[in-house]
This record gives sequence, C-alpha cells and structure tokens, in this order.
Amino acid sequence: MNHYALHPIGHVESGLTSRSAAPRQADEGAPDAWLVIDEQYAEALEGIAPGDDLVLLTWLDRADRATLAVHPRGDLARPVTGVFATRSPDRPNPIGLHDVRVLQIAGTRVHVSHLEALDGTPVLDLKPVLTQDR
Amino acid sequence: MNHYALHPIGHVESGLTSRSAAPRQADEGAPDAWLVIDEQYAEALEGIAPGDDLVLLTWLDRADRATLAVHPRGDLARPVTGVFATRSPDRPNPIGLHDVRVLQIAGTRVHVSHLEALDGTPVLDLKPVLTQDR
Repeated sequence: MNHYALHPIGHVESGLTSRSAAPRQADEGAPDAWLVIDEQYAEALEGIAPGDDLVLLTWLDRADRATLAVHPRGDLARPVTGVFATRSPDRPNPIGLHDVRVLQIAGTRVHVSHLEALDGTPVLDLKPVLTQDR
Repeated sequence: MNHYALHPIGHVESGLTSRSAAPRQADEGAPDAWLVIDEQYAEALEGIAPGDDLVLLTWLDRADRATLAVHPRGDLARPVTGVFATRSPDRPNPIGLHDVRVLQIAGTRVHVSHLEALDGTPVLDLKPVLTQDR
C-alpha cells in the first residue's frame, strides 16, 4: 500500500491549548481562532471573503493513530465502537473536519468563528461549503 | 514545517475509471461503489450499519498538487479563483470529501451510494455525519 505525504498549509492560532479543555462539540462554545496560512499559498486563498462558510481540514497531531475502537465520546458506560463509526480524534488518519465561518482576512491570516482545534494544529485544506457553483 | 504520512485504509472499487468521465456533482449521477477496507481495520468498522450517512475521506491521487488557482468548474469564461475557494481536486493536499449512504456491508467491504470517486482511489477515513451522540 502506498503512503502519501501531507504538507500543512499553515496552522491554527487559538486560545485552546489542551485536549482536555477542548469542548466536545462546537456548540458547547468553541472560541474564534486564526488560521495562519503560509505566504506561499496566498494565491490559493483568493476568492475567500468574510461571511463565507468553509470546511476546514486539519491534522490532529496529538491523536493516537493506533486506536481502532473507543467508548463513544469517552463515556465508559457506552459500548466500545469502531472509530469509523465515531468522531473520535484517535483514528488511523486523524484528519479533522470543522465547519467555520470566515470573520475577517488579514493578508494570509484568516479569522474564523467557533473552531474546536488546539493551538498549533496543522491546517491541511479549506473548501467552500456550497459546491453548486464553485 | 513538518510533513505527515497518510496510510490509506483501503480503496474505492467503482465503474468510474477516468477523470473526464466523472460527474462534476454527485447529483449528476455518480454511481454506487464499494469501499474495500483492509482487514487490519475491521475493528474500526464495528458500529457502521446499512442506512448510515457517512463522510468518506479519500486521497485524490490523480490531482495536481502544484495548482493554486483555477477557473471554477473548469469554465474558462469564469475568473481564476484560489483553489481554497473552490472544490477543485487540484490543490496542495488533495483530500476528497464525499457524502455517502451505506447500502450494505460484507466483511470489510462497504457498499455505498452515489460516490464521485475514481476506481482505485485510496480511502483515508470514514466519519458519521451525525455527531450529537457519537
């Protein structure tokens, strides 16, 4: 089986600094954060504007990639379930998906709302939520 | 900047064999397909059942990773736009996101509906669409 190399395009700048402090769901109060995109990708950001809804892809670099099954949401009362049936960060390829809204753009820094991702988390990709026209 | 290694968990088995034949949007008639997951990840599939809506993550291995801007949807009449503002497969980290529904499961083979991904495309991850409870 081939392997593929991810090249992060930037990182998250956030007040969230530890996994235990991170809210389990975005609606529990994830903070706004900055996506600090490398200058070499400036051209790839053109067309993104405040108000846009994006899917942010991150690399959950503090995840355990050997974990194949978990108690859902860490609740020991619930039966162990395969990680592909859960949103556990611990999984073979720990790619995070985050729905965010763009608040402002400053050069290659993108301010987004309600991001449940730890400070320093590598950013892999941004995609528009609406695909009908783009 | 660090790099990270993706280890595909399986591949797509589909009648779609060339990029030019692939529909541009799932609603234009993408076919059903099989996800052939490696046996070593069998445990990670436990809890997935027919009828589940999943987000499938793939590695678009035929994409051009050097492309930073494109004509949206390949329409030359439209202005060039940064790839992060589009769903172009050509982008620095060509990870595909696909909304699929599980039709049946046979061992570690998962039959899914309406998948716009080429035959042989590496599979990276599966996540449930509903996150409130898992």
